[in-house]
Amino acid sequence: MTSYTIIGPGAVGLLYGGRLQEAGHDVVWVSSDPDAFRANGVVIEADGRSTRMPAEVVAAPADARPADVVLVALKATANHALADLVAPAVAEGATVALFQNGLGGEDVVRAAVPQAGAIVGGLCFVCAERVAHGHVVHHDYGPVELGEHGASEVTPIVEQIAGDVEAAGFDVTCHADLVTARWRKLVWNIPYNGLCAVLGTDTAAIMADPDAIGLVTRLMSEVVEAGRACGADPDALDEDFATGRRDMTVAMTAYEPSMKLDLVAGRPLEVEAIYDRPLAAAQAAGAPMASVRVLRDQLRFLDRG
Amino acid sequence: MTSYTIIGPGAVGLLYGGRLQEAGHDVVWVSSDPDAFRANGVVIEADGRSTRMPAEVVAAPADARPADVVLVALKATANHALADLVAPAVAEGATVALFQNGLGGEDVVRAAVPQAGAIVGGLCFVCAERVAHGHVVHHDYGPVELGEHGASEVTPIVEQIAGDVEAAGFDVTCHADLVTARWRKLVWNIPYNGLCAVLGTDTAAIMADPDAIGLVTRLMSEVVEAGRACGADPDALDEDFATGRRDMTVAMTAYEPSMKLDLVAGRPLEVEAIYDRPLAAAQAAGAPMASVRVLRDQLRFLDRG
Repeated sequence: MTSYTIIGPGAVGLLYGGRLQEAGHDVVWVSSDPDAFRANGVVIEADGRSTRMPAEVVAAPADARPADVVLVALKATANHALADLVAPAVAEGATVALFQNGLGGEDVVRAAVPQAGAIVGGLCFVCAERVAHGHVVHHDYGPVELGEHGASEVTPIVEQIAGDVEAAGFDVTCHADLVTARWRKLVWNIPYNGLCAVLGTDTAAIMADPDAIGLVTRLMSEVVEAGRACGADPDALDEDFATGRRDMTVAMTAYEPSMKLDLVAGRPLEVEAIYDRPLAAAQAAGAPMASVRVLRDQLRFLDRG
Repeated sequence: MTSYTIIGPGAVGLLYGGRLQEAGHDVVWVSSDPDAFRANGVVIEADGRSTRMPAEVVAAPADARPADVVLVALKATANHALADLVAPAVAEGATVALFQNGLGGEDVVRAAVPQAGAIVGGLCFVCAERVAHGHVVHHDYGPVELGEHGASEVTPIVEQIAGDVEAAGFDVTCHADLVTARWRKLVWNIPYNGLCAVLGTDTAAIMADPDAIGLVTRLMSEVVEAGRACGADPDALDEDFATGRRDMTVAMTAYEPSMKLDLVAGRPLEVEAIYDRPLAAAQAAGAPMASVRVLRDQLRFLDRG
């Protein structure tokens, strides 16, 4: 058994944290509204079934007892505040697992949580939505890709977390390098998050339109090329992988990515993590992603509006 | 005096046709609702003053008496129907002046109106809006650029129309080649029409946002490069011209381009003339306009929605 502290009880935190708890791990939740959270517990709705479980909740990260792994499932827009939101929960040498989209988050964790041991990045290929306090609906998919920040092989802690997540009911892929894992996730996030937000639509409408499919294809190709230029494993990040992402998206339930929901709700968008950092890295590596840049500028405009 | 038949009583037709009539030319209007048009006459509102003038109106192009110039101010989305909408009004050898945005319209006129003499393209750098039947509000600007289709010099008929339009109160620039004139207009239309439609905004909001300005600048550079690759006069289509267009846009009244208004109203968008044809020409000339293509695909998606 591994002990987990879950920080960020949104869709991702509730789903993976809840399933880990259900699988028998010792899970503590950090919530700014602990009474409501405790009263409702965690509810996971999937395939028409609803599972409710009690939750051990603390109000502040400093109140969490030392855990083997602090699983951070905050949006990247909260990364400026990780020293307050995460650091007090992390015991000397404990692992921080960052289940978050985009590039560069692990560097922020390293600076904000200097006592952390390993920092593991997690990429969740999942359609899920938090519909109420403590209540997540798992619409579709769920695979997780993991890698340790700064490593060049699959480390024991990555294998441990992978085993836990797999036993909790999800497919897991471990990567020797996190760079490959993060760019693979960007192949989906960059086109669909941005286009669904800018065009006010969902994945099904995008994949029913020949011109939008053409645009998604070109955006994905730019991300594949940039990721390879940035050092991602060319066997794991190629046009076949991109084609597979589009096929998966056609097959899945119509989905409004979080960036679309954030825009509609007036919440800040994850532009920095999903667009700015990849664009800066790609530019430095000589693969400038011109089409992605258009989307990025449009999102910045909408984010201010 | 020149006799004009005006086809397309929208903002552009009403403004330029009305001012030509006011300047003393013999003007006949074609309207599918001639009674209402005749009852109201033509109203031009500008600088807080309103001018009303009677209108000689016919219900169908075949009813118009032969005119020296048939001035077509239809949206490019009507170009598939020019054989019906325009050809019956054009006497053997008469001039057709196409006041319309985009590329390729003159070829459509040539095929649809085989009896036409000269075909003159007109580009209107104007902010105007039809607010009611026969009633146009002239918000800002008004210069016109003219060139004869297929010519390589400023022809007498171009000079004649230029003289008329200038005497009617507008600045006019004559181009030896229409290619240059049309690409100069695209430098404004491609970024502002598309971005205002996709982002649901106006020119002032665009020019108040640093990221949107950056995007406009890159889009304009692509259009300048493509136009030059397509044979436009490099002295008349360069980065200085693009900078001037942006400066003009900053200085002018907040404006919602017609494509934005068309999208909101559920009318078809001029994607073919303003995006598809320029992209095809640019691609063939080796200057593919990658950022413009993103905007084009987004507009096609929204146009279908």
